[in-house]
Amino acid sequence: MSNKVHVGSTEMEEGLRNNKWKVLEPSEKIKKIPKRLWDVGKEDPRRVIHALKVGISLTLVSLLYLMEPLFKDIGSNAIWAVMTVVVVLEFSAGATLCKGLNRGLGTLIAGSLTFFIEFVANDSGKVLRAIFIGTAVFIIGAAATYIRFIPYIKKNYDYGVVIFLLTFNLITVSSYRVDSVITIAHDRFYTIVIGCGICLFMSLLVFPIWSGEDLHKTTVGKLQGLSRSIEACVSEYFEEKEKETSDSKDRIYEGYQAVLDSKSIDETLALYANWEPRHTRRCHRFPCQQYVKVGAVLRQFGYTVVALHGCLQTEIQTPRSVRALFKDPCVRLAGEVCKALSELADSISNHRHCSPEILSDHLHVALQDLNSAIKSQPKLFLGSNLHRHNNKHQNAVSQRNRANAVSLSSFRTDTSALMEYRRSFKNNNRSETTSAGERRMLRPQLSKIAVMTSLEFSEALPFAAFVSLLVEMVARLDNVIEEVEELGRIACFKEYDNTRDPTADDVRCEKPANVVISVGAAE
Amino acid sequence: MSNKVHVGSTEMEEGLRNNKWKVLEPSEKIKKIPKRLWDVGKEDPRRVIHALKVGISLTLVSLLYLMEPLFKDIGSNAIWAVMTVVVVLEFSAGATLCKGLNRGLGTLIAGSLTFFIEFVANDSGKVLRAIFIGTAVFIIGAAATYIRFIPYIKKNYDYGVVIFLLTFNLITVSSYRVDSVITIAHDRFYTIVIGCGICLFMSLLVFPIWSGEDLHKTTVGKLQGLSRSIEACVSEYFEEKEKETSDSKDRIYEGYQAVLDSKSIDETLALYANWEPRHTRRCHRFPCQQYVKVGAVLRQFGYTVVALHGCLQTEIQTPRSVRALFKDPCVRLAGEVCKALSELADSISNHRHCSPEILSDHLHVALQDLNSAIKSQPKLFLGSNLHRHNNKHQNAVSQRNRANAVSLSSFRTDTSALMEYRRSFKNNNRSETTSAGERRMLRPQLSKIAVMTSLEFSEALPFAAFVSLLVEMVARLDNVIEEVEELGRIACFKEYDNTRDPTADDVRCEKPANVVISVGAAE
Repeated sequence: MSNKVHVGSTEMEEGLRNNKWKVLEPSEKIKKIPKRLWDVGKEDPRRVIHALKVGISLTLVSLLYLMEPLFKDIGSNAIWAVMTVVVVLEFSAGATLCKGLNRGLGTLIAGSLTFFIEFVANDSGKVLRAIFIGTAVFIIGAAATYIRFIPYIKKNYDYGVVIFLLTFNLITVSSYRVDSVITIAHDRFYTIVIGCGICLFMSLLVFPIWSGEDLHKTTVGKLQGLSRSIEACVSEYFEEKEKETSDSKDRIYEGYQAVLDSKSIDETLALYANWEPRHTRRCHRFPCQQYVKVGAVLRQFGYTVVALHGCLQTEIQTPRSVRALFKDPCVRLAGEVCKALSELADSISNHRHCSPEILSDHLHVALQDLNSAIKSQPKLFLGSNLHRHNNKHQNAVSQRNRANAVSLSSFRTDTSALMEYRRSFKNNNRSETTSAGERRMLRPQLSKIAVMTSLEFSEALPFAAFVSLLVEMVARLDNVIEEVEELGRIACFKEYDNTRDPTADDVRCEKPANVVISVGAAE
Repeated sequence: MSNKVHVGSTEMEEGLRNNKWKVLEPSEKIKKIPKRLWDVGKEDPRRVIHALKVGISLTLVSLLYLMEPLFKDIGSNAIWAVMTVVVVLEFSAGATLCKGLNRGLGTLIAGSLTFFIEFVANDSGKVLRAIFIGTAVFIIGAAATYIRFIPYIKKNYDYGVVIFLLTFNLITVSSYRVDSVITIAHDRFYTIVIGCGICLFMSLLVFPIWSGEDLHKTTVGKLQGLSRSIEACVSEYFEEKEKETSDSKDRIYEGYQAVLDSKSIDETLALYANWEPRHTRRCHRFPCQQYVKVGAVLRQFGYTVVALHGCLQTEIQTPRSVRALFKDPCVRLAGEVCKALSELADSISNHRHCSPEILSDHLHVALQDLNSAIKSQPKLFLGSNLHRHNNKHQNAVSQRNRANAVSLSSFRTDTSALMEYRRSFKNNNRSETTSAGERRMLRPQLSKIAVMTSLEFSEALPFAAFVSLLVEMVARLDNVIEEVEELGRIACFKEYDNTRDPTADDVRCEKPANVVISVGAAE
């Protein structure tokens, strides 16, 4: 089972694919269809299972109509059962439950209301009754539509209100010509219950697909993705040679992009998971809101990763020789951040508490290392400024070299997303390239000027930003750890097994005294 | 008319409100309901109009059933028209068109397929026919459900496939007992056309609500929000006194948050706008995909603003006296960025091209200023390091002071979102506060250690990050300008009126010669 999510993720993937798709010739499109169909199933085999489940449910419900003995009892209203199955049976159990209960509730309330209106309008004449029904339809229609705009209703009961409105109108309007409203309402309710029953049986008992599980898995996946992203970012930043690493760029981008766009997916999954019965024995309730909170702090963390990625993509950089001086402590700190993220991912994945001591102590030592590395090289930060004042000639030469370097890397744009967009744009508008190109030439190349100027601030400036973001990242990691711990508490995770990591105590002894003092002062 | 959007924005607002809502007593909840209802309409009066439109449409369509002469022609299948109105009439014209055409298409294809199956199964016996229909229902059901997973279908024709499946099942299953399949199919199609017709009339001609217009307005709003955010950020960073500015924090947060979460809203609006007929005379097609692209670069730009905001929220900062030295150039650069964003917002809002010369030249001058300001104060960057080595005693005193400063500001958390979450969490779990509090005390306070250590890197480090992010922002602004210009080109914006800004030429003369050279070298 993969942890693909079905709400929104399709939209995300769609953007890129759609562009490629539009470029193809019609004949090529037809040739590619079988492959696309195959890919859809390969990405997530549960889709095939779901399709088969829908087919089976529809066949079962059609039997009500096709088989003589069943038909006698239920009659031609069996058609509502078919409709219910088509509309209610959703991919995940939570979504099906949500829709099924909404449908049942909506039908029930609408039925009751119809009886009330029927009761009131009962004694009036035909024309008066028509006017009364018309007015009721107008008022109920407008009111129900207006209620749907209330955020709470929209989120939880939108479908229920639609079904309420539908049923109310069907029964009220039909009642004008049919005398036995009770029979209609009864039949409709009865068949909807049969339809919902089949749907619930299929989605809860036959290969059930749980939104809560998806939410759990995507959260783990996001933590792992961020960890991969940071690792790739730092290793690229400290690489000795500049090289075209579209691979690592993709890896960085993929790692955090899923986190940045996770808001709507998380919320939908949490909404559905909320409807699902517990599916673990440990906890009385699935803590879906806490998963949403973890998602929110992960997004906050992700923004820092994006900024870190931005440090790699600015066109002029701190010279690689300077960076190399601080490679080890930076790589170590980033490594500790990655390790912490992986530990959190493991902790969620295995339903056990994480070990905060290990996380924070190792991180702290790494921070100390970076600190002393920077302090041990104070001349570097002053050197570059003094140097420039003294050796003007040498400076001019190095500036020219640098300008060449810019021209070589000037095709690197700021984000790979933009690159995608531009590429696709160019493909689509090849005929217009010349005029657009001229336009672009005429306009002063703003970003290049910007970066050329910024170079003179100080060669250490971009590196300072990089280090500052690394430290910022550690601070934000704290929030992530806090929310994950909270998740562990609510979801009753297993206790962390302390004996498994014998190094934890050693590290604690290394903690320098001055930090203890400063923590005391900060409290 | 406000530019509130109806897709997803409700979910966004919902998060905060829901928490407040859950804390209330049931009696208070009931008291608040009228106010909530009023607020929903006040936020966007178009919601009231839409509700009335639905009421009127339902009444109109009910007349088919209620009035004797109309009923004679159409018969009891008029009920399908009611259903169509309830399901198809959506808030925006684009959404209604999308659903209406999907419904029409789905019904038509299902009808054709049913005839084919009817034709094949025509001569067989009752039992064989039942088996044949059952098999067809299974295969078509599974295949249609599977097809819905293809991203392209899911995005554009999801509803159409559902209706196809529904109609196919209804007709095929009914046909087993009713002889006149053609009549059923014909009636169903006919009534659906009536329903769709009323919906289209209502949504296109009576107070139409265009998704394209919403998309346009939210894009302008996002540009303005980012501009406000940056302005508030920079002015808070260079304020002389530390103060509790929850107002400005909210302003910063609100400004960029809408941009960060805009992905799904933008895409949905663009999808619906795609179905809408053009509603301007200037352009043959609404460039909704370009708006999505502008949204994407704005999100990229927004991540930098988040990082800039992060600079304000790290607990230990560059001393305000140091910052004050660079206040003017930084504020000027940020001001130019804001001006550029506002110019872009104006340009989109008024459907005219923006003036790239003005944008880039002013920005360039501001960058030069910042550059020379930093160069004129080289001692500052070295001073803080040397100082520490020479005057150890003074250093110790200042460190103690700094530690106090930390304790004062130690309650500032990293993001206001997290503050919200924590606050709401505390409110919900007051009884559990003690144990949670103890837990938090026991765990080493990671972020404080992190920041305490980072202080020693260099006092200039956070400021360097701030400046670096400002420059990065200018580089990303370039991408935004590029996409907005592209938008102007595709949407056939009016030409920019050059005579309106007499200062443009003066500024161009100020451009220093060396920059012209460096641009040449970079090309």
